[in-house]
Amino acid sequence: MRSALDDRITLKYGAGGQAMRALIREVFLDGMIPAHPNGDIGLAAMDDGAALRVGDRWLVVTTDSHVIHPIFFPGGDIGRLAVSGTVNDLAMMGATDVLGLTCAVIIEEGFSRADLVRIQQSIRAACEEAGAMVVAGDTKVMGRGELDGVVLNTTGIAMSDRVVPDSGLRPGDCLVVTGTLGDHGMAVMARRHGLALDADLRSDVAPLNGLVRAALDAAPAAIVAMKDPTRGGLASALHEMAEKSGVGVLLDELALPIAPAVRAASELLGIDPLHVANEGKAVIGVRPEAVGTVLDRLRAHPLGRHAALIGRCVAERPGSIVLDTGFGRRLVTEPEGEPLPRIC
Amino acid sequence: MRSALDDRITLKYGAGGQAMRALIREVFLDGMIPAHPNGDIGLAAMDDGAALRVGDRWLVVTTDSHVIHPIFFPGGDIGRLAVSGTVNDLAMMGATDVLGLTCAVIIEEGFSRADLVRIQQSIRAACEEAGAMVVAGDTKVMGRGELDGVVLNTTGIAMSDRVVPDSGLRPGDCLVVTGTLGDHGMAVMARRHGLALDADLRSDVAPLNGLVRAALDAAPAAIVAMKDPTRGGLASALHEMAEKSGVGVLLDELALPIAPAVRAASELLGIDPLHVANEGKAVIGVRPEAVGTVLDRLRAHPLGRHAALIGRCVAERPGSIVLDTGFGRRLVTEPEGEPLPRIC
Repeated sequence: MRSALDDRITLKYGAGGQAMRALIREVFLDGMIPAHPNGDIGLAAMDDGAALRVGDRWLVVTTDSHVIHPIFFPGGDIGRLAVSGTVNDLAMMGATDVLGLTCAVIIEEGFSRADLVRIQQSIRAACEEAGAMVVAGDTKVMGRGELDGVVLNTTGIAMSDRVVPDSGLRPGDCLVVTGTLGDHGMAVMARRHGLALDADLRSDVAPLNGLVRAALDAAPAAIVAMKDPTRGGLASALHEMAEKSGVGVLLDELALPIAPAVRAASELLGIDPLHVANEGKAVIGVRPEAVGTVLDRLRAHPLGRHAALIGRCVAERPGSIVLDTGFGRRLVTEPEGEPLPRIC
Repeated sequence: MRSALDDRITLKYGAGGQAMRALIREVFLDGMIPAHPNGDIGLAAMDDGAALRVGDRWLVVTTDSHVIHPIFFPGGDIGRLAVSGTVNDLAMMGATDVLGLTCAVIIEEGFSRADLVRIQQSIRAACEEAGAMVVAGDTKVMGRGELDGVVLNTTGIAMSDRVVPDSGLRPGDCLVVTGTLGDHGMAVMARRHGLALDADLRSDVAPLNGLVRAALDAAPAAIVAMKDPTRGGLASALHEMAEKSGVGVLLDELALPIAPAVRAASELLGIDPLHVANEGKAVIGVRPEAVGTVLDRLRAHPLGRHAALIGRCVAERPGSIVLDTGFGRRLVTEPEGEPLPRIC
């Protein structure tokens, strides 16, 4: 069988879009068990993490490497990103009480100890915010020129009574985002290119487990799907959710919360903010009867003040995302991946 | 307080010896909770992994990044190494039934897809050998020149009824190794430097959970400490075990199993094989009355054929490792770390 992949790995294969999913399917899932007899969610589900049956509960596990450049950026740094990214992947599975995180660091020879201390302090602060703790670690050093600075891997483990998949949407369900879109990607992009608009752009990177817990407590049975729109932005997240759920999505453009600075930067750069990474936002699928309750709870939380109902699931065109602009409708394309490498 | 660390991170900080432990203590443990009220073994114990109470059992967690160079070497590759290293860290805690592994890969732009497939096949084969499964993954790509090839992170999770620490030795206990020493480090070193003696040197990289299970089944109460002598070799592992346990160690040089090719290479290169990494060996502390039983069981297993009783714990000179050469005694120094960077 001819491979859909290139012979050499290029940046798009790490960008969170179609190319990356093809790589995972063709290489990493090859020969893997497609489904688990006891209902476990494993690698093949390509969800935010895995969920394994332990007694009558679920052990939820997720892993992420963090290669962001620059390591310090407006609104955060690689340490805060690593903790938040992993806590959020657990939270998107419905697992909001973190049992423990592991943190493995790979350092380039010559890296500054002071920067390492700063990253560690940031890891600790983010852990406190999330009520999480690093329980195991690993340290490796590569030679000068063999690694660009520092990369982190964090793996998160949680026990949960219930698992929320990213595939539970059905026609009629409401789609909620917990706040403004595109902040992380635009802030990193502006900083990296030294754009003057830098000042008003800040990454939204934050651990969302408290916010998600509030929503789940308010309407436990009505929250049927969750995903954090990281690499590839809202467009990628919605495409994955819609495809796996077998529904179409109709978005209301006027309802999409986008900060003025992000809107301005995206127009300047010609980049769709829906394609840009978020690191402190969730997309939540809610049964229509509970959407008011969920929105109220989200908006009462500091990280959910700008939560908005952005669209609905429909039976037509399963897998497609259609944007109602107020003047007409257009298809939201799925990006090949995040426009910028090393965004997380 | 003046720091014991250099202002810039150098290769020795990733080499598994004193320098690395100082970095972990001073930076990564700073502000961490030193001990857990419920008896959990956390980061501060600096054991092979963490052990968390879940109901009446232990959830054991360990993480490792793998930066080995070259990625393919005699006897294995980075994929086999990643699975084995993580499975072995779990096994050293007494957790021989793996619940799941996560695998996060970071790839340099331009890396060959064929090599990635080869690594994935090796991961799968090692998982089968260990009875383990990759349940969650992550893929990132860094630009050309930003990473040397590929690095993997594997995190392992297991449930266990019992935890074996690395600190349970007391005077009179026997020390057993499960086979020949120094094979992995010497094989990688020879390959990297293109030494002709390459032919007879093969890494011992292998998942040890089956072997350890056999030993634990044979004498569950008599196995009181375990550690895998990876970076820094047997010398580092014994120093850590002896220090934490508060015992001295008396080794019998003639009893140390070392393959002829490793002995020859170590003499040629002037490197002590006790300082060199192993990736398929365990050091096991056994109560004296059970050492015969444990050795029999180990030797009956394909990975334990060369298991040997190499020494005993004594009350004198806690933390010191003394080698009885047959002609006299000398102190085994603790290496600052593994002599070669990127050995695992």
